[in-house]
Amino acid sequence: MTAPKSLLGRAFALLAVFTAQRPVASLSDLSRGCGLPLSTTHRLVRELVAWRALERRPDGRYAIGLRLWELGVLSPGSRDLRERAVPFLEDLYEVTRHNVQLAIRDDLDTLYVERLSGPNAVSILTRTGDRLPLHATGVGLVLLANAPADVRQRVLDGPLKRFTARTITTAAKLRETLAQVRRDDYAVSDRQIEMTTYSVAAPVRDASGEVVAAVSVVVPAGTRRETVLPAVRTCGLALSRELGNRP
Amino acid sequence: MTAPKSLLGRAFALLAVFTAQRPVASLSDLSRGCGLPLSTTHRLVRELVAWRALERRPDGRYAIGLRLWELGVLSPGSRDLRERAVPFLEDLYEVTRHNVQLAIRDDLDTLYVERLSGPNAVSILTRTGDRLPLHATGVGLVLLANAPADVRQRVLDGPLKRFTARTITTAAKLRETLAQVRRDDYAVSDRQIEMTTYSVAAPVRDASGEVVAAVSVVVPAGTRRETVLPAVRTCGLALSRELGNRP
Repeated sequence: MTAPKSLLGRAFALLAVFTAQRPVASLSDLSRGCGLPLSTTHRLVRELVAWRALERRPDGRYAIGLRLWELGVLSPGSRDLRERAVPFLEDLYEVTRHNVQLAIRDDLDTLYVERLSGPNAVSILTRTGDRLPLHATGVGLVLLANAPADVRQRVLDGPLKRFTARTITTAAKLRETLAQVRRDDYAVSDRQIEMTTYSVAAPVRDASGEVVAAVSVVVPAGTRRETVLPAVRTCGLALSRELGNRP
Repeated sequence: MTAPKSLLGRAFALLAVFTAQRPVASLSDLSRGCGLPLSTTHRLVRELVAWRALERRPDGRYAIGLRLWELGVLSPGSRDLRERAVPFLEDLYEVTRHNVQLAIRDDLDTLYVERLSGPNAVSILTRTGDRLPLHATGVGLVLLANAPADVRQRVLDGPLKRFTARTITTAAKLRETLAQVRRDDYAVSDRQIEMTTYSVAAPVRDASGEVVAAVSVVVPAGTRRETVLPAVRTCGLALSRELGNRP
């Protein structure tokens, strides 16, 4: 990529090299990733380490520092929602014993803000802070079905990434699925991400009735839908109520 | 405060105005807080908003943006530990039905990296990302009792903040308490933070035997210690085992 001109822009371009897939990076990874010469990258990294935005690992590579985590958790977008949601997610976990997820929409992505999971839950890909496309997950379908028309259109227009043989990859099929999700007020994403799991998701609405998040449970592919769907829907309604929503 | 000279330093000084006590700040709060003129602050804020490190609230004030949260959760210091700890914290919550906390030491502070809590748990002050002094909490006492000698000495030398009539505020009493915590391998912080609650904490050790975190349960002051202590200690040992520790 071409490096931004401003120092702050360069710092954020450098930080953006770190992702869920690459939480640790060497100096040359960073230099390549943000398009800055090695010497400039080195100076910038040194300053970011001094501010504890980055930390140097024992092997000489770098990772996001604890100071950035500490600042980040102050973000109302995640903090307020998470604080109020966690007790309800607890309940849902206790009833289902599977992976419980809370996600919001950030532009065209599903952003996972919380995940609870126990020793016996099926292993899944996502972690807190991860992103996935809206068309391929239960929470994403709920968020997309309730998104403004222009957001829906941009997803329908764009390429729909295939994860498995079951992933929705055509606009026609996605449009039909979203209409179904709006009718049902829940979504099932059946083996769209991995062939071994499916997820059931329900909307979370605030006092104005707007869908601000989605909650889901990810279960092994063989699980009977009836055993998880009522719990997920009830949890979505309970959390909506907590946020002031009155149906 | 005097503003740092470098642009990056200024940006971090501005971000540092946001704390758990002040998650939302006006432009003049920010200007005052980081010691920069209003016009400079405004330019900096605008650039931070463009990078989504800050977000503008409907009332015109500012808060930490979701992008910073997303970067922050990549921090291995919180992420790796939290990911592995959450299932064990779940179990502890289920057994005790009280506030379950996971904390690490960051220099002279207790830093809370995870907290689980249900609808019936007693309401407490701390949230994820919060800091408290080491001498006044159960997790803090466990972390301090197992900290390097120079860290212990700096806490013993410093002023010991009083929260309640029961807070440890003398070096002699703290030294005695820490020796007890090392003998017992757990800590009880009895009404040191609020007169209505106490906490019981146990160490979490990694493969090298070093104490890398502490886990605790916060319960109403009248709760019998025997009903929570064995669960907390067992959770600490289980999580240590998960981290490769063999007693």
